[in-house]
Formats: sequence, structure tokens, C-alpha cells
Amino acid sequence: MKGFGSDNHAGVHPALLNALVECNSGHAPSYGTDEYSELAIKAFKGHFGSQTEVFFVFNGTAANVLSLRFLTERHESVLCSDVSHLNIDECGAPEFFAGKLIPLKTTQGKISLTELKESLIRKGDQHYSQSRVISLTQPTELGTCYSLAELKEITDWAHQNQLHVHIDGARLTNALIKLKCTFKEMTTDLGIDVVSFGGTKNALMMGEAILVLNPELAKISRQKLKYIRKQAAQLPSKTRYIAAQFSKYLQNNLYLEIAGHSCAMAQRLYDGLKNISGIKITMPRESNAVFAIIPKEWIKQIKEKYFFYVWDEKNLECRIMTSWDSTPNEVDDFIQQLALISKN
Amino acid sequence: MKGFGSDNHAGVHPALLNALVECNSGHAPSYGTDEYSELAIKAFKGHFGSQTEVFFVFNGTAANVLSLRFLTERHESVLCSDVSHLNIDECGAPEFFAGKLIPLKTTQGKISLTELKESLIRKGDQHYSQSRVISLTQPTELGTCYSLAELKEITDWAHQNQLHVHIDGARLTNALIKLKCTFKEMTTDLGIDVVSFGGTKNALMMGEAILVLNPELAKISRQKLKYIRKQAAQLPSKTRYIAAQFSKYLQNNLYLEIAGHSCAMAQRLYDGLKNISGIKITMPRESNAVFAIIPKEWIKQIKEKYFFYVWDEKNLECRIMTSWDSTPNEVDDFIQQLALISKN
Amino acid sequence: MKGFGSDNHAGVHPALLNALVECNSGHAPSYGTDEYSELAIKAFKGHFGSQTEVFFVFNGTAANVLSLRFLTERHESVLCSDVSHLNIDECGAPEFFAGKLIPLKTTQGKISLTELKESLIRKGDQHYSQSRVISLTQPTELGTCYSLAELKEITDWAHQNQLHVHIDGARLTNALIKLKCTFKEMTTDLGIDVVSFGGTKNALMMGEAILVLNPELAKISRQKLKYIRKQAAQLPSKTRYIAAQFSKYLQNNLYLEIAGHSCAMAQRLYDGLKNISGIKITMPRESNAVFAIIPKEWIKQIKEKYFFYVWDEKNLECRIMTSWDSTPNEVDDFIQQLALISKN
Amino acid sequence: MKGFGSDNHAGVHPALLNALVECNSGHAPSYGTDEYSELAIKAFKGHFGSQTEVFFVFNGTAANVLSLRFLTERHESVLCSDVSHLNIDECGAPEFFAGKLIPLKTTQGKISLTELKESLIRKGDQHYSQSRVISLTQPTELGTCYSLAELKEITDWAHQNQLHVHIDGARLTNALIKLKCTFKEMTTDLGIDVVSFGGTKNALMMGEAILVLNPELAKISRQKLKYIRKQAAQLPSKTRYIAAQFSKYLQNNLYLEIAGHSCAMAQRLYDGLKNISGIKITMPRESNAVFAIIPKEWIKQIKEKYFFYVWDEKNLECRIMTSWDSTPNEVDDFIQQLALISKN
Repeated sequence: MKGFGSDNHAGVHPALLNALVECNSGHAPSYGTDEYSELAIKAFKGHFGSQTEVFFVFNGTAANVLSLRFLTERHESVLCSDVSHLNIDECGAPEFFAGKLIPLKTTQGKISLTELKESLIRKGDQHYSQSRVISLTQPTELGTCYSLAELKEITDWAHQNQLHVHIDGARLTNALIKLKCTFKEMTTDLGIDVVSFGGTKNALMMGEAILVLNPELAKISRQKLKYIRKQAAQLPSKTRYIAAQFSKYLQNNLYLEIAGHSCAMAQRLYDGLKNISGIKITMPRESNAVFAIIPKEWIKQIKEKYFFYVWDEKNLECRIMTSWDSTPNEVDDFIQQLALISKN
Repeated sequence: MKGFGSDNHAGVHPALLNALVECNSGHAPSYGTDEYSELAIKAFKGHFGSQTEVFFVFNGTAANVLSLRFLTERHESVLCSDVSHLNIDECGAPEFFAGKLIPLKTTQGKISLTELKESLIRKGDQHYSQSRVISLTQPTELGTCYSLAELKEITDWAHQNQLHVHIDGARLTNALIKLKCTFKEMTTDLGIDVVSFGGTKNALMMGEAILVLNPELAKISRQKLKYIRKQAAQLPSKTRYIAAQFSKYLQNNLYLEIAGHSCAMAQRLYDGLKNISGIKITMPRESNAVFAIIPKEWIKQIKEKYFFYVWDEKNLECRIMTSWDSTPNEVDDFIQQLALISKN
Repeated sequence: MKGFGSDNHAGVHPALLNALVECNSGHAPSYGTDEYSELAIKAFKGHFGSQTEVFFVFNGTAANVLSLRFLTERHESVLCSDVSHLNIDECGAPEFFAGKLIPLKTTQGKISLTELKESLIRKGDQHYSQSRVISLTQPTELGTCYSLAELKEITDWAHQNQLHVHIDGARLTNALIKLKCTFKEMTTDLGIDVVSFGGTKNALMMGEAILVLNPELAKISRQKLKYIRKQAAQLPSKTRYIAAQFSKYLQNNLYLEIAGHSCAMAQRLYDGLKNISGIKITMPRESNAVFAIIPKEWIKQIKEKYFFYVWDEKNLECRIMTSWDSTPNEVDDFIQQLALISKN
Repeated sequence: MKGFGSDNHAGVHPALLNALVECNSGHAPSYGTDEYSELAIKAFKGHFGSQTEVFFVFNGTAANVLSLRFLTERHESVLCSDVSHLNIDECGAPEFFAGKLIPLKTTQGKISLTELKESLIRKGDQHYSQSRVISLTQPTELGTCYSLAELKEITDWAHQNQLHVHIDGARLTNALIKLKCTFKEMTTDLGIDVVSFGGTKNALMMGEAILVLNPELAKISRQKLKYIRKQAAQLPSKTRYIAAQFSKYLQNNLYLEIAGHSCAMAQRLYDGLKNISGIKITMPRESNAVFAIIPKEWIKQIKEKYFFYVWDEKNLECRIMTSWDSTPNEVDDFIQQLALISKN
């Protein structure tokens, strides 16, 4: 049964499943030396710039923590949002693989430059874990997007202060829909250093990519990240099955089609829910989710048909998330059901 | 082009690919709470005993190092073979995730009880990393198998000495072919505590399972291994795609069919190569590989058509490995080509 | 030149220095098996209860992080104050040795039970680092003390929720002066599980002790903490030189004499400073420090004669700290100088 | 009671104890910013060259593992002797703080260049932990010394192969007595990169120093090792008490006097024991210990009066170790007693 729980509840997009079937013939070298990997890397370079280094890993946790491990020494720290997946949904993986996190207060899931400036303290003080990376989630865990101007402002300041900027891009493509720009314009062109590029939540079976965009870091990564990845148990053996999916995903605007559809469905949800009296929308809709406070009893009733998560148990803020396979009918039915409940 | 490089160069078995396609409909809960995972776990319990706890992970490195991390404290050590994958092919992953390895001398890839007894020293001495686990590879990296009697002897002694026994079973099913027994007879019934059960090298697209067989440890694992796995970035999101493969693999003797074919092809290779004058077989053939010393010039020529690895650069010992998709024709042609080369 | 920078700027108390000289004859077994260690352990048992296990280490960082490592699994987290030394002055050592810290808002350096209750979330959720320990600093970094009632309330709640309670007691003896109780009444009797007992800041040359008070944990510690300590590079070789100091410190009320004097000097400071118009006392005086906001220009002038730290650069809150060797004359002179400055 | 157990059973040399008493007046800044630290650093620079960077730590384990952590990435490995303290007496500390150890076969405690050459394999292979450091113990754990020529040969080869050379110098001064050279001639002049300089086993109360000799690494260490040290809980608070001892130790040839006496006593032991029929000397005497096989019953009897360690339980090889406070009378009596026992 389908619902609005998460985009990782959805299956694999038919075109991507087909890519898996198509690449399944004959032998291919393992551990990243196959032709499918070459093609996928080429595709990423096409979208993010030819300087990009690409490292495939299995999941988003890995893409994030290995990015951070690559960018920090063990005694350095990462500035991140207090509601970031990194901080509250990785069971301490960042502290295990990389180092200390310094969670910052956020507004609608976003860190402000003001917060960053206040948190960058005690440089050179051996007693204080030295901040080295800013990790931003784009779109954020609350479905909002940093604007290009906001990203640029943070990145410029970061580089002036010897900080690297990492983007947790588990749903990065969705931000393109909001910002109406290319991957390169949203990342490389602004000076973003490293991106965790998500596949699993965007209709792939599995697979993420660490993209090292900064040319100097890209050069270092070639001698370092491959060992970090292997030691971290994240070097896929039959790499072709991740690579072939990414190649397909990045071709012929499939990525935009998938993200565009998800976001359109979320907008349709948003438009419907905002008109139901008793439901309070809490966040701007800038990705594939709607955040809204729904009365407790209503949640109970609607969940009998459609699953979704109560995001904040305290105020009953819910996250209703669409995916590549959400249909207008399902969205409309969800709205209609809730509208009916609201009238009883 | 096909060759004899590794069983992870082969593609996915059609039945397993089909399992992937079949499970790709509708939504499924993520992170292991789906029905496919339930079914696969049930299948494992059927083969290894109902006490078994099952934890799916992405690859073999993870299955091994998380097994060890579960079984040891950070200050404890693991007794393993000096030619084990764990010791020489994991880029220090065991030392990163778990603790110190103590590599032991081997004969044909196998550790003897005598070596184990000599290496268990300084119990209670705070200066010495305390040995807690024996890790055996079955079949070994050199294609040999511990007999049931050898496994039992080591396991009994281990338990008398408060050691756990872990099996790196990246190709575990192949050992069934040699030993003509069931999974349970080779593991649970002998008291083996934890098994890394391999999928990737046995015709799956990806996926391994940590099997906790010891009932007491199984109980502990339910409260502990799930966090270890998540923190280690090894909790698959869309778990159904690993689970559905394992369900199919463990059904209707598909596992035996796949392993049986690989091993039969290796035996065919063995029978052909042993008669070529100038080639020296170095290991008994007990899994899906033949180890043989081949003259340098011959290696160069035959590799133009069929890839395989020179295992030991010093003495030119080669590993020629079959897989589920090796054909009698390919094997025969390989032998014939080498026979021809040997006569020039 | 003497000042009010920190109690670790002071030298070794003559009686303790004498203890070092006295124990320096003949040979003594190393690594904790000497008679001096036995005596010191006996002294700790006398003060904290006979169930206590004692582990000497070199410094406070070690006492804290090894306590936490002992009490947690790598995937578990520690609830602590946002201004705790643990969180902001250990360069990420807790995250390196133990696991994730969850810093909580504080009032006058103290965590409230309300804050703790709100922070204990998502029990059993594999995505969330599970909280296992509460770490309290007594006296706090801001010179305040938890009352016995507050400690009991927190500890009772902690145990009801399967949490351990650790005390960072770098200056633990000072709290006795405020609370007018014994060590045992402040710790063991309330159910405190583990204490980092400070020596270095209380007139010793160096040396701290991890005290495991909880009988069940004490039993476990005997088989576990000795290895943790050794692996962490904290097993002192010539242990007698730490032990002999602690024996002396804990004898004949020397510990009370040292703490009592430091605190009396701080009270004298407090009484003098509070009457200077233009200086704003910010914290109750409950240990050996006075916290006060002092005008920038005054700080500059008085620091020419007496060193101390500006604790908060933003509001110019200063920490003026006494030690065992502070004299009434010095304190009075400091007050007088500031009074003079205040009148110009 | 005195014996021949270890040089860390001995007390503090009177001159060094005096240095402790002398520096105990007034206040001194903590954490390495005091004048005593400056003086000690200056003394080290005098002995090892002005480029040297000096980091005081508490014990030898720390000096070794932090040196290695500084010199390696987590995925790199250290080539060391199979009988090294690092490998068998640190409870896995190197693997916890730094990375994988690769233990090499030794002759009389020494690694040969041949062994090193054979062990440097698989450069650039992501599956193999990349060797980055050679760690030599000088004098070795078996009381032998690498000659200057041997050190130079290894160091030259190491640098040609992008390896760093670390010396575990827990008893480094003793090697000067054998090699009749200066510290600088034995280390800096040969290109040795980092030295763990021992104090505790050479008559200090406690304290070791990490010396970064390589100018390029010294520069890096200034921005890196201070944080590594702090995070590792090895930043001494009242640093003057370590520094003052080292200043005294390195002045007026006290270090040579202490080492010279220990070694002379060991030679006296050697000369006596070698003439007792039934005792078999097993190692050349090049430091402050004699290694000899002694009949089981004799060991039992002589140990009633003088303690020492049976080094190898299998063949009853004993280590009889002298220290700064061993007297000719004690040595002669030990020999005489054993001679008497040998005649019964």
C-alpha cells in the first residue's frame, strides 16, 4: 500500500530498474574499475564540472560521514543545523567516523550566517575542537531551500575563515526545481566544496555519490578518499549496479522529471491542505514534503489509509512526503479524506 | 567479456534479478521493517535455526567488521589467519571498527588448533590486548575448507577458553558442496557463534547478512547490533531489495544450484590444468577456485583472452576462479588454450 | 608571580610535596601493584565506601572520558551541560574516546531535571544515539553547586530510566565546604555511579582518580576499566607518586583544609568585590571562584598586577579563582586595587 | 626492597627530585606556557637541533601512539618489530589511536632492511592499508642497539619510499653509551623524523617528550600535534613539573651519568653471569639489561631475594635489568648468590 511516509518507501523508477537489467550481462571488473562507473562519473562531471571527483557509496549516512571525515582531522568539528539528519538521525555516526558536531539553532531548518559567525570561536585554542566544516542540508530536513544568494554568502564567509562547505544533498535534485537552476549553478559555481549526492531517495534502488567539487580538494581526494571509503566498508563490489542507475538518472533530464513530479505532487498537497480549516501549514513548500500541524484525532483516522510521520510529537507537526510514484489521485484522495474528517 | 577473475565480476543470477523486479511494486517500509525482510529472516532461521538473529548489511567488509565489533570490546583482539581477507584486504577496517588483529601462520589457508593454543597468551594482563574472537574463513581465501571435525575442535576449545568463533562466509555455500552437509550442520550445530553470510559473491547484486547463531549472543544482538549497524552506515534504507534476493537465494535449493555449478566448473578446470605439464597445482580444490603456478610467459598469453589474478607475485601462483555463469565451453577453451601455449 | 588565574597555576602543597619525597626510596612495583597504591585505594574506600573501585589516571580529561567510555557503548550518548568542560574544553576528547555528547541548556551552570526529561527521547530508535549517562560537574564550571536534594532527584530519575550518573569532580572537595557533608553523603549515598575525583586542581602535582561507586559497575570495572585505561595511555608507570599524594591528601582532613582555605579566600574576594560599585557579581559563590562583570578598562589595569581569565568575551564576565596558596593579603590587595581603579 | 625487575621500579634520581622541589614556588601558567617548559624545550633543541618541536606527554604509551597518529592517516599502517612494546605491550593502543600495525620478524630485537623491503607491498592498492611509518625501538626491547649505519640505511630507504621513521626511545640515552655519539648524531643527523624520548625509565618521576625532528614535519606539528595531544588526554596541566625534570636531566651530562651507570651495572652483571656454568646469555649487552636462560629451580631460589622478569616462559629466558640506583654490591651479590645456587 502506498502512502506519504517517505520517498524511500517508494520503489525503483522503471527506467532505473531497466538500467539495472540492461547492465546485467557478462562480466565487469569490480570495485569501480568498470565501464559503467566511468560513464556515470562522466555524467557527474558533465553536471558539476570536469574537476569533480566522484566516489560511489551505499547510502546517505556514508556519503555524509565520509565527506566529513575527508574534510576534517579527528580533532576538528563540524558546524551543522540542530535539526539536521547528521545531528539527530545518524546514531552518532559523524562522531564515530569524523569528529565533533556543533549543532546550531535554525529557522525553518536553515542556519543563518549570523549563527555561524557567533559559533566560530576560539581559533587556535588547543582546548577547543577547531571548526573546519559547515554542513548544510539542501533541501533541508524541513523541506525548505537555501537560496543561491544564501549559499553564496555562507560559502564566501566560510572560505574567508578557512572552513569547507559540505552539502547533504540526499534530495538535492528537488532543490533545482525550487531554485530553477542547474546543479553546477547551485554548487560548483558558488564554491561548495563537497556534496553528498543522493540516489536512494530519488527513485534509485540504492546508491549515493560523494562529489568533491573544489579542485584542490578533488586532487587530494584521489589519494585519500578511496582508502577512507574502503576502510569504512563503503566500497561497492559490483559497482556497475550503482553506476548504471546514476548514468540513467542523469541522462535526458530523468532527474528533473522525477524531482519535478515529486515536488508538483507536494505542491498539490500543499494547495489542498492549506484550505482545510484546522490544519496549520508550518513550513514553506520548497521540496517534496508538506509540514503541517494536524489535530491528533484526525491523524489517527487518516493514517488508517495513508501512512506518514508525525515529525514533532510535542506539537503534532506532521511530515507528509511525496515521491516519484505519488499520483494526483492519491494526493487528491488524501486531501478529500482529511477534508471530510475535518467536517465531522 | 567473461573471465576467471572473481565471482564478483559476474552479473546477477536471472532468478535473483527477477526477485528484484518482482518486489518493485508499491511502497514498503524502510530500514528493515518490510515484509520482504521478514520473509528473508524467516528463511535464514529455517536454514540456521530459529534462534538466529539476522542483520542485513551492504557488503562483506561490513559483515565481517561489524560481527567483530559486536563480539569484542575495543581493547580485545581477534585471532585470524595471516592470509585472511580481514588481515590483508580490508585496508585496516577491522582495526578501525573493532580492535587489534593477531594474524596466525596458516597451512593452505587454514589455522590449526596448535597455532591457536600457542597464541592465546597473557590472559588478564592489562598490557596485552585480550583475545576474544577466532575468525575463520570458510571456504578459506585459498579455496580450502575446514572439515566439520576441524571446526568442532576449534569451536569447542574456543568456548572452553571464553573465545567466540566467527566465520567469514563470503562464499559459505560453496563449503556445503565440499562438506555435503547443511548450513546448520556446518555452523549452529558445531557452536559457531556468528557468521558473515555472503550474497554478493554468490550471484546477488549486493547484500550480506550477519547471522548471530549463539542464542545468548542473539539475545544481546537485538539490543546492540542494530545501533552498531546504523552508526556504521550499514543500515540499508530500501531493505526489500536485499531481502528479496536472499529469500529467493535460500528457496528451492537455488543456493546449492549456484554453488554446485561454480564448484563443478572449478573442478573441471582443476582436472584440465593438472594434466598440463609445466603448471603446478598448489592447493586442493574445495571451493570455486583453482590455485596453480603458471610460467610467466604463459600467463601473459592466456590473459589476452581470459582475465584472472596472479595471487602471489613472487612465485607466480595464480587464482583462477569460476562463478555461477562460467560455462563448460569457457572452461574447456581456457584449458585448451593453455595446453596449446604449453606446447610452444 | 601569583594571581587568580586558576587553581592549576598554583604549586604543590608542602605536605603533598613531602609525600612525594617520602615515598622516593627503594624500588616499588610499577603499574599499580605497589603498597602506596594499596594505601591510597584504602583511603578512597574509607571516604566513599568499601565497594568503591579506584583507577588512577594522569589528568582530568582522562578521568572524565574514560569514565564515559566505561559507562557507554560507542553508539550511546551523554547528556551534559552546554557549558561543561566536557563539551567545550576537551577538544572533542569525549567524542573520540566515548561517544556523542548532547549538550543541555543550563542555569548558573546547572542542568535541571526538567531539561533532562525533555532531552530523553526516542528510546529504542536505531537512528538515534541512545542516551546512557548524565554527566554533572560538581561544583560546576561556574562555581555553583548542586544541592544534595538536586543530586538525589536527578540520580533517582536517571536510574528509573536506565541512565548512569557521572560526576566530573575536578574540584569535588570544594563542594563539601558548601554542602557541609561527607564525600559519601554527596555521592555513594545518593546513588552516584562514577566520579572523576580531581587532584591536580586541589594542590597535587598531578593525578586524578576514577571512582566506580555503584557496586555492580564496580564489579564490571575490575575486568574492563584496567584495559580501557591502559589502551588509553593512562596507566601510570611509577604509580606510587600519584598514590602517595592522594593518601596524604585524604588523611587528617588535609583535603578539607585545602578546600576550606580556597573557598574562604573566594568568599573574602566575593565580599570585597560585591561592594565595589561598577562591578556586577554574576554567580552565587559556592566554590573557589567569583564570577563578575568588570568594566573593560578596569580589567586591563588590574591585570597588570594580577592575572585572571575573562570568561565571556561578550559581556566581560570574569572568573577570579583562588587556590590553596592564596593569601588574605593578596585578596585584600586585589580588592583594594580594584576599588581604587573604580574611583578614578 | 630493590631488585632487577625494571628501571621503572626505581625511584626518582635525587637531582631530579630536587628539580621538582625547586620549581615548586609561586604560580606558573598551565598547559605548557610556563618558563620551565620554555627552558626544557630549549634544552631539547640544544641536543637535537634548533628545528626540533617538543611536546611533553605523561607516559611512553602516549609518546608512541601520538607520534604514530601524527605521522599517519587512519587508513595507513606502521611497520614495526614483532617483539616491540608497541605490538605486544600496549593493549592495542596503536590500533586505537593510530592505525594498523604490521609486525615484522626480528633478529635480536632488530628489524632488517631486507624484512622491511619485503613488507612494503601493494602501494596504491585501496584494499591494503598503506604503510607510512617505520617504528624502531632504540635500544630494542631485547637490549640491543641499531648501529648508526643500520639506522642510516633504514632511514634513507624509508625516505626514498615515502615512509617516515619513528624511534621509540623509552631508554634512548642508554643507546648513546653503546654508540658513543650524541643524540643529534643518532637521530637528526641520520634523518630520523620523530622520537619518543623517554623520561620515566631514566630516573624521572614521570614524563616523556615527543620530538619532531624533521623540519617539514616540525612545522606541521605546530598546528596539529597540540590538538592531537589535548584530545588524547595527554596535555599536562602543571607542565612545569615535567619540564623542570627534563631541564635538569639534559644539563651537565646528568643524562649520560644516569645512563652510563645503568649500563655499567648491566655490563658488570653480564660479566658475572656469563661465567656461571648452566646460565646461557642470549643477547649482546648493549643497554641496561642482561638476557639469559636460567634453570627453573635457580630462578625460583634467586627470586626470593631479587625480583626480575622471566621474559619468555617457554625457554625461561630472563630479563635482568639495572637502573640508575643499582649498586655494584647488589650486582655482585646477585651474581654470587646465583653462583652459589649453581653449585648445589
